[in-house]
Amino acid sequence: MSDTDSVFQGQARAARAASRDLAPLTRARKDAALHAMADALAAHEAEVLAANALDVARAADAGTSSALIDRLRLTSERVASMVAGLRSLAALSDPVGEVVRGFSTPTGVRITQVRVPLGVVGIIYEARPNVTADAAGICLKSGNAALLRGSSSALDSNRAVVAALRTGLTDAGITPDAVQLVEGGHEVTREMMRARGLVDVLIPRGGAGLIEAVVTGSSVPVIETGTGNCHLFVDATADFAMAESIMINAKTQRPSVCNALETLLVHADIAAEFLPRALAALAASGVTVHADPSVMVFVPDDHDVQVVPAGPGEFDGEYLSLDLAARVVPDLDSAIEHIRAHTTGHSETIVTRDTRSADRFVASIDAAAVLVNASSRFVDGGEFGFGAEIGISTQKLHARGPMALPEMTTTKYVLVGEGQTRA
Amino acid sequence: MSDTDSVFQGQARAARAASRDLAPLTRARKDAALHAMADALAAHEAEVLAANALDVARAADAGTSSALIDRLRLTSERVASMVAGLRSLAALSDPVGEVVRGFSTPTGVRITQVRVPLGVVGIIYEARPNVTADAAGICLKSGNAALLRGSSSALDSNRAVVAALRTGLTDAGITPDAVQLVEGGHEVTREMMRARGLVDVLIPRGGAGLIEAVVTGSSVPVIETGTGNCHLFVDATADFAMAESIMINAKTQRPSVCNALETLLVHADIAAEFLPRALAALAASGVTVHADPSVMVFVPDDHDVQVVPAGPGEFDGEYLSLDLAARVVPDLDSAIEHIRAHTTGHSETIVTRDTRSADRFVASIDAAAVLVNASSRFVDGGEFGFGAEIGISTQKLHARGPMALPEMTTTKYVLVGEGQTRA
Repeated sequence: MSDTDSVFQGQARAARAASRDLAPLTRARKDAALHAMADALAAHEAEVLAANALDVARAADAGTSSALIDRLRLTSERVASMVAGLRSLAALSDPVGEVVRGFSTPTGVRITQVRVPLGVVGIIYEARPNVTADAAGICLKSGNAALLRGSSSALDSNRAVVAALRTGLTDAGITPDAVQLVEGGHEVTREMMRARGLVDVLIPRGGAGLIEAVVTGSSVPVIETGTGNCHLFVDATADFAMAESIMINAKTQRPSVCNALETLLVHADIAAEFLPRALAALAASGVTVHADPSVMVFVPDDHDVQVVPAGPGEFDGEYLSLDLAARVVPDLDSAIEHIRAHTTGHSETIVTRDTRSADRFVASIDAAAVLVNASSRFVDGGEFGFGAEIGISTQKLHARGPMALPEMTTTKYVLVGEGQTRA
Repeated sequence: MSDTDSVFQGQARAARAASRDLAPLTRARKDAALHAMADALAAHEAEVLAANALDVARAADAGTSSALIDRLRLTSERVASMVAGLRSLAALSDPVGEVVRGFSTPTGVRITQVRVPLGVVGIIYEARPNVTADAAGICLKSGNAALLRGSSSALDSNRAVVAALRTGLTDAGITPDAVQLVEGGHEVTREMMRARGLVDVLIPRGGAGLIEAVVTGSSVPVIETGTGNCHLFVDATADFAMAESIMINAKTQRPSVCNALETLLVHADIAAEFLPRALAALAASGVTVHADPSVMVFVPDDHDVQVVPAGPGEFDGEYLSLDLAARVVPDLDSAIEHIRAHTTGHSETIVTRDTRSADRFVASIDAAAVLVNASSRFVDGGEFGFGAEIGISTQKLHARGPMALPEMTTTKYVLVGEGQTRA
């Protein structure tokens, strides 16, 4: 740390030094550290819950919504889940050291491309304190030092969680600077976003506003995650029962997450037959439909449906609730056109029995995931069998879709010769 | 194009539309287009050379250095080389459509991760007009629309080259909007750098100043290429003849490129023996050594050496000329420390006979390429057998090292089910 460093710069330099210790660690050392972090977190549960109670009380005094307080609140079960998450990371294979490819030059220089850690990873996130342990664990397993910039509303919780994790690191003989909490006002977030050279990558986790601010304000490379305005197009040839089941699952199985359905598009040829049953099924599941005029004409008088007229901009946001925008489109091309105009590049689905429609939809839609006859809720690191994920990337560079341990690494080319020179 | 679009925004929207046509093209269609572009460029050689003569005359009037004028100048051979470059791209396999991996969920949803084009790629580059054809060809083969922002000093040349390439595209039945030249003052470059959503990635190609400006000023994701302050560490156990041969090759085989050697570090134990012969060999190759005081004590009086004292900051820049900074370091750790402080993350080399030194150097140096007993001039897409490269990435995200056709793509997950929903 130089004399003129800010507190954050001192932390970032300590993280860089820690990252150099982490990079060559064997899997056994990292897995032992993850278990030690889990042990320490379990041992300090009382301190963590007490600290969390302070955050929750402060939030309640400030009139925070009950939904936000629920995200902030830790319970014995939630701490146990954080502990289990750290242990499950130890069971995953180590991405570091994987040889991605290898070949030789004509003169016999042997070249291997090997996975190495990114270095120093900054995570900027909102209220959920469980992210603190998840992100720290994923960074440690992938050999990266973590600079955790949590929300001020969760400060006491995050301090207690990080203190426990650092105790675990120390117990495992690893520098606690591998996991650091970044504290301070908004100016520290800005400092983090301009810390090119000190921080290798920033990953924002949270709402669309947070992600937009980080993406547009950072000179540090950013991996954009999470916003999902996911569409389902029910084609003219769709199996209605399948379409209904996928629609209900994608919308209601967990409405608050990024791979939940937000917009329903229905082919005009089947609207009169499909929409009444779809609207009834949605109402039965508690979903309010925000209907374009093209849908309104198909709303039956005699059903118990929950339909309101779509407002301006209705097709652009994420509800993250039991709400669904709906529109009738004249054909597949119009559906593709609508999705292109409104997609956030997360997960887009077609239900169809026509292979040509399926192929054209898949080829035409530019998103992290395109689905045929399956629920968008499958677009998830856990469902993919990745074991852990830091988020779902909706950008095209570096990683797209669920980001697991390999996506938390970069590669290095290693060239070994016996004195070869270039002719 | 909307009524309020600027000229650049209109171009970017046309590029997006073109990118949607390019994405599903078969390899055969793209290869035919590359040959048509090559044919058209060859057919318009006279126009291209005449336009280039205008640029060269303007540069000469402005007192431009002869080195810069040489980069700007096109000859019949250089046009032939651009034509051959386009044809050679047709011989390379198509990265688009490659299945990177595939697996199934427990419920039988089939998942494939498939390479798809990035979309709209912006290239911001300096005087060399040959980049115009190279970049257009690489973008086309990888299914991307290209927005080419060349230097104003090469405007007439670039216009002529792009006009020829667009004629070729039209001949091949592909929209000419796939390749567009972006014209205008610096404000257009700034507009391009803020065109998030319109442009998918920006790749700056040129000097360190250009790259720094694009990297720090863009909200569009950037792939940083090219700056190489490359080091060679001659370890205590090095074979002197090998070290000398690698040093001379890396420094002199082509001094103006990013993988050329810029700094020599010599282990103190062998400095008295190795340095006099190294300095003599460098002098014989016309290299001026910028020597740290630690080297000065080993400069022989009786040799014909070219040594000047190193100035402040001598170890930080790229010479890109027959100059070389040199320092004696007490041991391997000091060499690693020096490289960590001064590296641009391109290519770093050790010459040693000690496997432990080699392993520690490889593990400790964080760069796109780390070399043992081979010349850094091998760090090149051509030498790697990649066939074409858009540049050498020195960043950690997305691509690191030589960027070939696969690095010009992203991936998309395609999920195909029979109605599966998430439990």
